[in-house]
Amino acid sequence: MPRVGIIMGSDSDLAIMKDAGDILKDFAIEYEYTICSAHRLPAETAAYAKEARDRGIEVIIAGAGGAAHLPGVIASYTLLPVIGVPVKTSSLSGVDSLYSIVQMPRGIPVATVAINGSANAALLALQILALHDESIWQHLQEYRNKMAREVREKDQKLQDLGADAYLNIKK
Amino acid sequence: MPRVGIIMGSDSDLAIMKDAGDILKDFAIEYEYTICSAHRLPAETAAYAKEARDRGIEVIIAGAGGAAHLPGVIASYTLLPVIGVPVKTSSLSGVDSLYSIVQMPRGIPVATVAINGSANAALLALQILALHDESIWQHLQEYRNKMAREVREKDQKLQDLGADAYLNIKK
Amino acid sequence: MPRVGIIMGSDSDLAIMKDAGDILKDFAIEYEYTICSAHRLPAETAAYAKEARDRGIEVIIAGAGGAAHLPGVIASYTLLPVIGVPVKTSSLSGVDSLYSIVQMPRGIPVATVAINGSANAALLALQILALHDESIWQHLQEYRNKMAREVREKDQKLQDLGADAYLNIKK
Amino acid sequence: MPRVGIIMGSDSDLAIMKDAGDILKDFAIEYEYTICSAHRLPAETAAYAKEARDRGIEVIIAGAGGAAHLPGVIASYTLLPVIGVPVKTSSLSGVDSLYSIVQMPRGIPVATVAINGSANAALLALQILALHDESIWQHLQEYRNKMAREVREKDQKLQDLGADAYLNIKK
Amino acid sequence: MPRVGIIMGSDSDLAIMKDAGDILKDFAIEYEYTICSAHRLPAETAAYAKEARDRGIEVIIAGAGGAAHLPGVIASYTLLPVIGVPVKTSSLSGVDSLYSIVQMPRGIPVATVAINGSANAALLALQILALHDESIWQHLQEYRNKMAREVREKDQKLQDLGADAYLNIKK
Amino acid sequence: MPRVGIIMGSDSDLAIMKDAGDILKDFAIEYEYTICSAHRLPAETAAYAKEARDRGIEVIIAGAGGAAHLPGVIASYTLLPVIGVPVKTSSLSGVDSLYSIVQMPRGIPVATVAINGSANAALLALQILALHDESIWQHLQEYRNKMAREVREKDQKLQDLGADAYLNIKK
Amino acid sequence: MPRVGIIMGSDSDLAIMKDAGDILKDFAIEYEYTICSAHRLPAETAAYAKEARDRGIEVIIAGAGGAAHLPGVIASYTLLPVIGVPVKTSSLSGVDSLYSIVQMPRGIPVATVAINGSANAALLALQILALHDESIWQHLQEYRNKMAREVREKDQKLQDLGADAYLNIKK
Amino acid sequence: MPRVGIIMGSDSDLAIMKDAGDILKDFAIEYEYTICSAHRLPAETAAYAKEARDRGIEVIIAGAGGAAHLPGVIASYTLLPVIGVPVKTSSLSGVDSLYSIVQMPRGIPVATVAINGSANAALLALQILALHDESIWQHLQEYRNKMAREVREKDQKLQDLGADAYLNIKK
Repeated sequence: MPRVGIIMGSDSDLAIMKDAGDILKDFAIEYEYTICSAHRLPAETAAYAKEARDRGIEVIIAGAGGAAHLPGVIASYTLLPVIGVPVKTSSLSGVDSLYSIVQMPRGIPVATVAINGSANAALLALQILALHDESIWQHLQEYRNKMAREVREKDQKLQDLGADAYLNIKK
Repeated sequence: MPRVGIIMGSDSDLAIMKDAGDILKDFAIEYEYTICSAHRLPAETAAYAKEARDRGIEVIIAGAGGAAHLPGVIASYTLLPVIGVPVKTSSLSGVDSLYSIVQMPRGIPVATVAINGSANAALLALQILALHDESIWQHLQEYRNKMAREVREKDQKLQDLGADAYLNIKK
Repeated sequence: MPRVGIIMGSDSDLAIMKDAGDILKDFAIEYEYTICSAHRLPAETAAYAKEARDRGIEVIIAGAGGAAHLPGVIASYTLLPVIGVPVKTSSLSGVDSLYSIVQMPRGIPVATVAINGSANAALLALQILALHDESIWQHLQEYRNKMAREVREKDQKLQDLGADAYLNIKK
Repeated sequence: MPRVGIIMGSDSDLAIMKDAGDILKDFAIEYEYTICSAHRLPAETAAYAKEARDRGIEVIIAGAGGAAHLPGVIASYTLLPVIGVPVKTSSLSGVDSLYSIVQMPRGIPVATVAINGSANAALLALQILALHDESIWQHLQEYRNKMAREVREKDQKLQDLGADAYLNIKK
Repeated sequence: MPRVGIIMGSDSDLAIMKDAGDILKDFAIEYEYTICSAHRLPAETAAYAKEARDRGIEVIIAGAGGAAHLPGVIASYTLLPVIGVPVKTSSLSGVDSLYSIVQMPRGIPVATVAINGSANAALLALQILALHDESIWQHLQEYRNKMAREVREKDQKLQDLGADAYLNIKK
Repeated sequence: MPRVGIIMGSDSDLAIMKDAGDILKDFAIEYEYTICSAHRLPAETAAYAKEARDRGIEVIIAGAGGAAHLPGVIASYTLLPVIGVPVKTSSLSGVDSLYSIVQMPRGIPVATVAINGSANAALLALQILALHDESIWQHLQEYRNKMAREVREKDQKLQDLGADAYLNIKK
Repeated sequence: MPRVGIIMGSDSDLAIMKDAGDILKDFAIEYEYTICSAHRLPAETAAYAKEARDRGIEVIIAGAGGAAHLPGVIASYTLLPVIGVPVKTSSLSGVDSLYSIVQMPRGIPVATVAINGSANAALLALQILALHDESIWQHLQEYRNKMAREVREKDQKLQDLGADAYLNIKK
Repeated sequence: MPRVGIIMGSDSDLAIMKDAGDILKDFAIEYEYTICSAHRLPAETAAYAKEARDRGIEVIIAGAGGAAHLPGVIASYTLLPVIGVPVKTSSLSGVDSLYSIVQMPRGIPVATVAINGSANAALLALQILALHDESIWQHLQEYRNKMAREVREKDQKLQDLGADAYLNIKK
C-alpha cells in the first residue's frame, strides 16, 4: 500500500516528477504515480484527494505547470500534507507555476519546493515520515552523509586534477 | 433570474468586484454575487459551476487573488464562458493572481481581464450577451458613445481652462 | 460565411494561431484567417473590426507579440467579443505581449488567454457560440469527455507500464 | 516542551510570524519563538537546528526576508521538516525572500509557503503533526469546517444585505 | 501654431504629462495638450496623428498607462517622431506601460523615455527641434549648464553644512 | 560625411546593430559604425559624443547590453538626439539593458527602442532627419507603403494557399 | 584626508547614503560626501574618479537610482574598488538601479550591495581597509559581536515578555 | 600560499568560476579552488570561512546558483571581503541567485558582481589587493590598457573591413 502519492497534471510532467519516485524507491517507501488533471478531471482530482488517507497515503506530492492549480485543489480536499512542485514552463520558465502554487490563501497550505524540485519534494516527504519512523531518519542521515561525501570527493578530485583537467573529464 | 454570476473567493474582493455588478445594473441585466472560496468550499464551488447553467446563468465572472484558482476551478466544471478577474495582492501586486488565472492549460480557457479589471469583465459579459440581444448591443453602443463624449468633454475643458486650472479643479 | 475571425499581426504568428483554426475546423465552425498589422495597416485593421459584424463574424480571435496592440485596437472598433492571444517573444518570452493585451483600460475589454494559448482562444469562442447553439454545446461536452478519457488512458498506461517504460515509449 | 519551533531572523519579522504562534496556541500545541539571525549568529543558528530534535521539536517554522538564508541554513543542519516563510520586503516585496527560500538545491528541501504566509506555515506544521495525532486531525477538520462556515455566513450576509450595505458595514 | 503635440489617453495622466508642457513653456516653444484615448476615441486618435503635420506639429509626445497603445497607434498614422511616456500604474508600477510602448515591432518606432519621464520627453523633443534651430540649441546648452550648476551648488551646500544639517533643511 | 553615428559597446553587438546601418544605406543616408566601450574607453566615448556634432553627425544610435551605460553616457556629453538600443543579454534577456537605458534621470533623455530594435532606431533617426528633408519623408512614406503592401501580399497568399500550405512553404 | 569617498548622483539619495557615512564615523574613518551626477556633470564625475587615489581615497562608495550609471562610470576611470549602492526608485523599486549597477561588463567590476544597502557598503569598505589595518579589523569584530549581542538581547526580551507584550512595546 | 579563495557550491559551477582563477593566474596571484556546499557541508563551509584568514586568504570569491546561500554564509563567518558570483540557473536565469546574494541584511555585506561575472570577481579581488601592492596596480593598469587597445583594434578593423566583412570573418 503506497504511503506517498505522486500526482501530476499531465504526462508531460512525468520526466520531472519521476525524480521523486526514484528517491522514494531508494528509501524503499511505497509510492504511486497518478496522472490526473485538476481541470480536465476535476471530480477525479477531488476524489483522489478525499480518498487518499483511507488508502493509506500519508503525504501527497503534486506537480503542475502554468496556472498550476493541482496542488492547491488537492490540498483543499484533504488534511494530508501536500507538497507542490512547480514545473518549468516554456514561456514563463515556471514563475507562473511557482506563483500559482506558493501563493495559497490563508487556511489551505501547500508546501512548495523549487521549480522542477521533485527530488526535494520526495526528501521532504521522507523527512515528514521520518518523524515517526527511525529507520527512515537513519536512512536520511546516511543520504546526507553520502551527499556530503560526494561533495568532498569532487573537491578532492579538483585538488588532484586542477580545474582544466577536471572540466575536460566532465565533458 | 440572474444571467451573470459574479463569484469571488473572499469578501475582501467585493470592493473590486462590485464594479462589475454596478455596470450590469446600469444595463438592467440581472446578476448575482456569490462568495465561495475554491479552497475553503471546494465542493460548493464545484456545485456552483455545475448548476450555473440550469439556474439560467449565461456568463460567470470570477475574481480571486494570489494563487487565484477560483476562475480555473469554475471553468473546469462548466462550459459557460468564465471571465477571470485577477485581484491585486499586497505583496506581488496581482502578478501572482494574473499568472494563476491567465496561464490555463489547453482545454479549459478562462477569459482574463486586467488586474482589478472587474468593470471590463462586466462589459465583456455584456458583449457576449449582446451577440443575441440587440438591445444590449445598442446599450453598449451608447455606453461607448458616452465614454467617447466624456473624453471629448475633458479635452474641451482642458483646452478651455489650461492644464494648471484643470488640475486645480480636479484636486 | 465565417463566424470566427482569426487575425494576427504577422505571418510569423501563423504557426501559433493555426491551433485556433484547427480546433474550429474540428467543430465544423467556419472561420477565416487574416494577417493585418495594427501598426503597418492601421486603417485596414480599423476597417476589419468595423465591418466584422456585418460580414457575419461573431467572435474575433486576435494574436500578436511584443507591444501587442492588435487585440486592443480591434476591440476599440467593435462590440464583438475580442479574444487576445499573447504570442511568445524571443526577448521577453511573451510577458510584453501579455501585459500589452491584458491590461486594457476600463471600457474596452479584451478576453485574454495564456501566452501562445490560441487553442484555448478557439475553445472560448466556441463556448461563447454554444450559448445559443446546443449542437456546439454538445460537441464541447464531448470534447471535454474526450480530454478526460485521454488523461485516464494515460494514467492507466502509466499504471500498466511503470514510469520508466512509459517515458521510454514517449521518446 | 515545545513541539514547533518558530524562528525568525529579526524582531522586525515578529509581527508576521506571530500569526503562526497564535494558530498553534488555538490548537493547544506547544511552540516557542526564537530570534536568531543566520548571518549575525551563524553558530547559534547551527546549534539551534542541530539541537532542535533533542529538545523535542518536531517541525521548525523559519521566517526571513531579503537574502533569506535562515530556513535553508536551518534545513542544512537538521532532518526535521523546515517550513520557510518569505517575509515581505520594502524594495522587492518579498520576491527576493521567496526566491532565496524556495529555490533550494537538490538534497536539502525547505517547505515554502506564501509571502507573509506564517499562518499557513502553522497549519502545515499541524497537518504534519496530525499524521500521528488524531486529535489534531479532528481539530484541523473543525478548523476547516469553521472556515467554510465563515465563508458561507459572509455569502449569506451579502445575499441579505446587498453589496452596498455589506461594504458600508465593513468600513 | 504649436510645434509639439502632447497627447495623453486620460486626464488622469495630466499631472504627469504637464512636466512636458512646463519645460516647453520655459523654452518658449508652442505646444498643445490633447486628451484622446486610443481605445475610446480610436478614429479621433487616427485623425489627430494623420493631421498633425499639416497643423504644424513637428514632434508628438504621447503618454499612456497599462496596455498603453496610444503612442504606438499615433506612430502608425504619422511619420513625425513620436515620443512615448509610460505612465506609472497602480498594480504593475508602469512595467506594463513600458513594455506596451517600447516593444514596438519593426517598422514603426516609438522613442520611449522613462516611466513618468515626461520632462525628458520634452527635452528630447527640444533636442530634435534644436537640430535646425540654433536658439533652442543654445537654450538647451544653458539648461544643461544650469542643471550642472545646481548639482554643484547642492554639493557645495552639503560640504558647508554637513549631511545632518543638509537633511534637516530639506525636510 | 556621415549624418548618423551608430556606436556600440562591443563587436558582439554588431550583428544586431547592423540592421540600423542597412536601413540607412537603403535610404542613402551616410552613416558610420563605431565600436567604443563606455567602460573600457570612457575618454574616447566622451570625445566621440562631444565631437559628433562638429563632424556633422545629427543623430546618434547607441546600442549596448547588460549594465548598458553607453547611450546615457553619450547623451550626457551631447545635445544631439541619442537613440538607445537595448541589446538582448544571455542571462536577463535584455531587461537589464532596457532598464539601464530607458530609466534615465530627468535632464538627459535617451530615446529608447525595443530590445534588439536597431532597425527601428534607424527609422526613428530617419523620421527625425525627415523633419527637414522632404526626400527622406517621401522615402519613409514609400517604405511604409511597401511594408503595408507586404502584409497585404502575405495575407493574400494565406487566403490563396490556406494555412497548412502557407506554413509548409515557409519552412 | 578622507579614505572613503561617498558619492551620489543626487541629493535625493543623501538620506539613504548617510547610513554609510554614519558607520564610517563610528569607526573613526575619514570620509567625504560628494554629490556629482554622472549625467549632469560627466566631466566632473570623470575627474573625481581619476583624482580620487591621489587625494588619498582608498574605496569609493557610489549610490544612484534608475538608470544608475554613476558607479560604473566611476569604476571606468579608476582602479580603486568601487562599491555600488542601488537606490530604491518610485516606479521600479530599485530593480532598475540594481540591474544598471550589478550587470557590469567583463573588465570593469562594481561591488554591488543590496537596494538601499549603504550601511553594508560602508562595512564592506571597512572590511577592505581592515586587510591592512588591524585596528579596523578589531573594531569590525566588536561590531559583529555587538550585533550578535543585540540579537541575543532581543531574543531574551521576547522570551521574557512573550510576543504580544514585545510587539506592544515596539509600537 | 593562496591569497584568493574561490569557492563554489557545486562542481557544476566550475566552468563559470574558472574565469576567476584564469585571471588570477595571469596576474600571478596564488589562488585555490574549493567545492563546498553551504547546504550539504554546512560545518565545512563554516570552518572554511573561519580559517581562511589564518591560511593567508585575503579575499574570498564565492559562486552559487538558485537559493544561493554560500556567499552569505561565508560572509557571516569571516571579516574578509567576500565577493559573490550569482550563477545563472536554468529556470530563473540567475535572478534567484542574484537576489539570494545581493539582498544581504544590514551588517553582513557581500560584494556582488554580475550573473556569471566571475571574471569581474577576480578583477575586483585584484583591485582590493592592489591597494597595498603597487605591482598589481600596475598590472591592472596594463590590463585596462590592453582591453582599451583591443576595443580600438576591433573598431579599426571594422572601419577597414566594413560591417559585412567583419561579421563574415567572425563566423
